[in-house]
Amino acid sequence: MKFLVTGAAGFIGSNLADRLLALGHEVVGYDNFSTGRKAFMESALASPHCQLIRADLLDREALSKAMAGVDFVFHLAANADVRYGPNQRRKDLEQNTIATWNVLEAMHENKVPRMAFSSTGSVYGEPDVFPTPEHCPFPVQTSFYGASKLAAEALIQAYCEAFDLHAYIFRFVSILGERYSHGHVIDFYQQLLEHPAALRVLGNGKQRKSYLYVQDCIDAMLLAIESTPEKLNIFNLGTNEYCEVDDSVGWICQHLNLEPEVIHGGGERGWVGDSPFIFLDCTRIRALGWTPRFTIREAVVLTVEFLKANRWILQAPDAA
Amino acid sequence: MKFLVTGAAGFIGSNLADRLLALGHEVVGYDNFSTGRKAFMESALASPHCQLIRADLLDREALSKAMAGVDFVFHLAANADVRYGPNQRRKDLEQNTIATWNVLEAMHENKVPRMAFSSTGSVYGEPDVFPTPEHCPFPVQTSFYGASKLAAEALIQAYCEAFDLHAYIFRFVSILGERYSHGHVIDFYQQLLEHPAALRVLGNGKQRKSYLYVQDCIDAMLLAIESTPEKLNIFNLGTNEYCEVDDSVGWICQHLNLEPEVIHGGGERGWVGDSPFIFLDCTRIRALGWTPRFTIREAVVLTVEFLKANRWILQAPDAA
Repeated sequence: MKFLVTGAAGFIGSNLADRLLALGHEVVGYDNFSTGRKAFMESALASPHCQLIRADLLDREALSKAMAGVDFVFHLAANADVRYGPNQRRKDLEQNTIATWNVLEAMHENKVPRMAFSSTGSVYGEPDVFPTPEHCPFPVQTSFYGASKLAAEALIQAYCEAFDLHAYIFRFVSILGERYSHGHVIDFYQQLLEHPAALRVLGNGKQRKSYLYVQDCIDAMLLAIESTPEKLNIFNLGTNEYCEVDDSVGWICQHLNLEPEVIHGGGERGWVGDSPFIFLDCTRIRALGWTPRFTIREAVVLTVEFLKANRWILQAPDAA
Repeated sequence: MKFLVTGAAGFIGSNLADRLLALGHEVVGYDNFSTGRKAFMESALASPHCQLIRADLLDREALSKAMAGVDFVFHLAANADVRYGPNQRRKDLEQNTIATWNVLEAMHENKVPRMAFSSTGSVYGEPDVFPTPEHCPFPVQTSFYGASKLAAEALIQAYCEAFDLHAYIFRFVSILGERYSHGHVIDFYQQLLEHPAALRVLGNGKQRKSYLYVQDCIDAMLLAIESTPEKLNIFNLGTNEYCEVDDSVGWICQHLNLEPEVIHGGGERGWVGDSPFIFLDCTRIRALGWTPRFTIREAVVLTVEFLKANRWILQAPDAA
């Protein structure tokens, strides 16, 4: 099969591209390199079955051209930054909502029949039910990121209803692992490299969060798209556990043999739109036979290992 | 208070403008006249406290200028056509989702603190719970219209969380009454004028629908914005009843003294994205003391009366 992966030079996209190639598929990577890294695609591009298109999803002509002959789209490209939402409102609208509309239009033009979308547990806002199932009470959005992803989900659903499109919407917890390049583990690691004696943590450190190892995430997505024939499929993706931010701090410091003074910013939320408790009910994806192989703690440690071995990741993207 | 009403030359907007002026408020009407009618605003424009701005919501400069000194925005402008959604996908994205983003940005620039939004029961898709409450299970979108309105709701919610914005989101059933100019009553009336002996009805006629009289709708909105001090308020607006499409057909024909042959198109849905059953739980708005004064049947008859007295409405908007 020929897969188009948007955000193919990103954390999850590049790992997925490698996996799809290993399974014998063709991959068209599409990335604007706003946060993607050429180095992440080196292994994929060593294959004759992978091509890379450097373009933005707002470039509808390039996007439509890239869709030619594609069987399945993994739409992973996004502005994945929740924290800066209030200051980059246009970016969430354009790169998440309008970009998804463009992907759907380009698929429609090219009669591409199937797609998967990386949504987020952030669409649940601050839910009342934990673990939170896919059919929890109609949520209220608390972040521009969540709002832009919910808008994208809604568009996908309308296209499924109106046209011959099959879609898989995955609501991720935060993903960790090799090529991780954005989020709290890298923030803490960078701080500790610069000032090993002190670590500033946003919020009170008691925020309860869920994480999933990137290869477990990819296993789940690939299993789902092979297993369910429905037109529209919505799955939470996470582990059956959560941790506090301070737990994660402890694991990172222990792994680095550091005992910094931990200075909490205070408050239940680290920033506007930060959810104090994320814990998804993953019964639906587990019913397909999927089980994550790594715990949250193991995923955190694997991520620190990756960062230690790849300090270049701390530099801004090279736009190479 | 100074109110900005988007879609002020439309059905609900022009009735609201009249009401606000009667209550002694100032009104800035904003309309692109894509479906609005100058005639609907004649009564409002007779007041020295009303001004009309003819501009599109995609014109951010005009919109921002219009917000100067405004205390409250009623954002009613929309592409309100569910039925043609699959053929006008860009219109729903632009006129409903991006336009709402523009309204929120213009409010933010001008520090306008409060707004109300005309959302729709269509955001519930095809729910499992009837009557459907605001906190029903997380719905799946079945129309481009519903998707674009849900996206707009999500944006409003994110702005409320991040900034000092108070918002009222009203999920309407279909609204009927004076200045109604779009929907099944006008379709049926027009058909019967042209061919009194036959009436074509989309779907099997058994679709169960809810309607609300426009003045009841306005009563509810004005009561809500005076009553609830929360930052974000979501209300269903409808009556405590529903009817079948064939009931409505019967009332219209009886009122017109006609006995046409009714020809059903067949199927549970009239078109892609048509919901076979819309019935909203309005406990929340009723708890504020609101009760609709008119039944669905009365609202249908009032609408036919209006159409009979205003046949010019059957012509395309004059773009005057």
